[in-house]
Amino acid sequence: MALKSRTSEMPADSRPNDQLRTPLYHQVYLILRDKILSGVFNDGDLIPSEAELSRMYGVSRITVRRAVEDLAAEGLVRRRRGAGTHVTYEPGRDVISVDVKNILSGLFEIGKETTVKLLEYGIDLPPSDVKRALRLEDGAQVQRTVRVRSTLGNPFSFIVAYVPYEIAAHFDRARLETDSLVDLLESTGRKLTHASQNISAGLADPIIARTLGVDVGTALITANRVMYDESGEPVEFVRARYRPDRFQYWLDMERAPADADGKAPFVVSSAGRAAPTPVTEAD
Amino acid sequence: MALKSRTSEMPADSRPNDQLRTPLYHQVYLILRDKILSGVFNDGDLIPSEAELSRMYGVSRITVRRAVEDLAAEGLVRRRRGAGTHVTYEPGRDVISVDVKNILSGLFEIGKETTVKLLEYGIDLPPSDVKRALRLEDGAQVQRTVRVRSTLGNPFSFIVAYVPYEIAAHFDRARLETDSLVDLLESTGRKLTHASQNISAGLADPIIARTLGVDVGTALITANRVMYDESGEPVEFVRARYRPDRFQYWLDMERAPADADGKAPFVVSSAGRAAPTPVTEAD
Repeated sequence: MALKSRTSEMPADSRPNDQLRTPLYHQVYLILRDKILSGVFNDGDLIPSEAELSRMYGVSRITVRRAVEDLAAEGLVRRRRGAGTHVTYEPGRDVISVDVKNILSGLFEIGKETTVKLLEYGIDLPPSDVKRALRLEDGAQVQRTVRVRSTLGNPFSFIVAYVPYEIAAHFDRARLETDSLVDLLESTGRKLTHASQNISAGLADPIIARTLGVDVGTALITANRVMYDESGEPVEFVRARYRPDRFQYWLDMERAPADADGKAPFVVSSAGRAAPTPVTEAD
Repeated sequence: MALKSRTSEMPADSRPNDQLRTPLYHQVYLILRDKILSGVFNDGDLIPSEAELSRMYGVSRITVRRAVEDLAAEGLVRRRRGAGTHVTYEPGRDVISVDVKNILSGLFEIGKETTVKLLEYGIDLPPSDVKRALRLEDGAQVQRTVRVRSTLGNPFSFIVAYVPYEIAAHFDRARLETDSLVDLLESTGRKLTHASQNISAGLADPIIARTLGVDVGTALITANRVMYDESGEPVEFVRARYRPDRFQYWLDMERAPADADGKAPFVVSSAGRAAPTPVTEAD
């Protein structure tokens, strides 16, 4: 395991020029693939013919054929002469679902189903959003780690975590390669009590694409999370990227009893439905 | 308002061929823009020089310059001769944050901050994931509506909703253009009691890109939601796409009291933190 320190989010040793050139057929491929993975085109469905796709996207039939051939090579569709092209992918088949109600409890029971690999480690000045979120003084340093998490050898998340240096200095460095940062944070005697997280979407840049085994420009689920200890002090900032074909957030919501106004709010609840493949989220 | 029926997710009247051709500089632009909007590059930060970016991405300086010029034209960076290029965008500035705890209560108090426009309306056979989720018999039809939701005239969500025909047949059609489907569903006397939703990421296809005013291939937050009534019957399937620069999910989590095993699970809670711009989510 090579440990190195970096000062930029985009290391200079990356020259993924080939990956950046996205030809037309590949863009059609990416969009069709997205429709299959998200369930717009379903298992067993006949997808539009080459002639139809060519008309819809305003591209040549050769371009469409190349895109569909790549989908077939990936096992997402099956082409049959005279019978058209059928989808052969069931959405959710390989997806880890994380019930948002249990996100944080999952942080404490790391990786029965998942394994983590430390890619980078260093002491840095924080980016300004991290500095603001962790309420750091000018010039204060953070420990920055980059990890990738896998299930059955397949990477599904790319995680950059920042911990104030004064806290991280107490970590057992050997455990950085095996333990979750949450375990390390609690090993310093702090008790973690709450967290705030946003969930959004982003594109795979060359570094993340290579690490997660996807194309540059693939859609990824993104999450930024700040963890707080019992005194209300922010102790960790996490920037995570997930492959949406291997990881999704899941919400179950039930309506609460009506309040005084007669309004009945919904609350997040996992009752009544099991996620397809429940798993813990970890950093 | 033109109402029309469709049988495909990809209407044949779309020929967005120009939009599909993504040149190299535009891919570099999309990735850098994503880093700025997600906070990897922060307001006030100096971004890497043209020479550095050129080396990192393995592309020419002319390609980098064109990408940075487009970021500058969009107001995301400011270039100054001799002083480099600074980020001039504060992440979250224009973002609607939806607290997941209140997602569903929001469905019932539509659009003080948002307006809805009905783009399409029709009776169709459902796609197979919709058919499965709504537990429909072979040949059963659904009402399919496509809506776009905006705030201050800026579209932020593209929503395709499916309601079993036997339920939708009781809708007041005039209200389809103004009311939320949840209001319409409750107007039939049903009481909606729970919902299941996944949150993931996807790419903007030509139709959605044009509607939401983004480039083809932009990252979007995606959500599929099934709404159930008090008898446990599924009554609506929604496929939603959101612009991540205008809409994000927000989670606040607090640790619950320890249970018998001494474990203290976290639960979703909005206590202790107000979302930057709380708004209701609606379909």
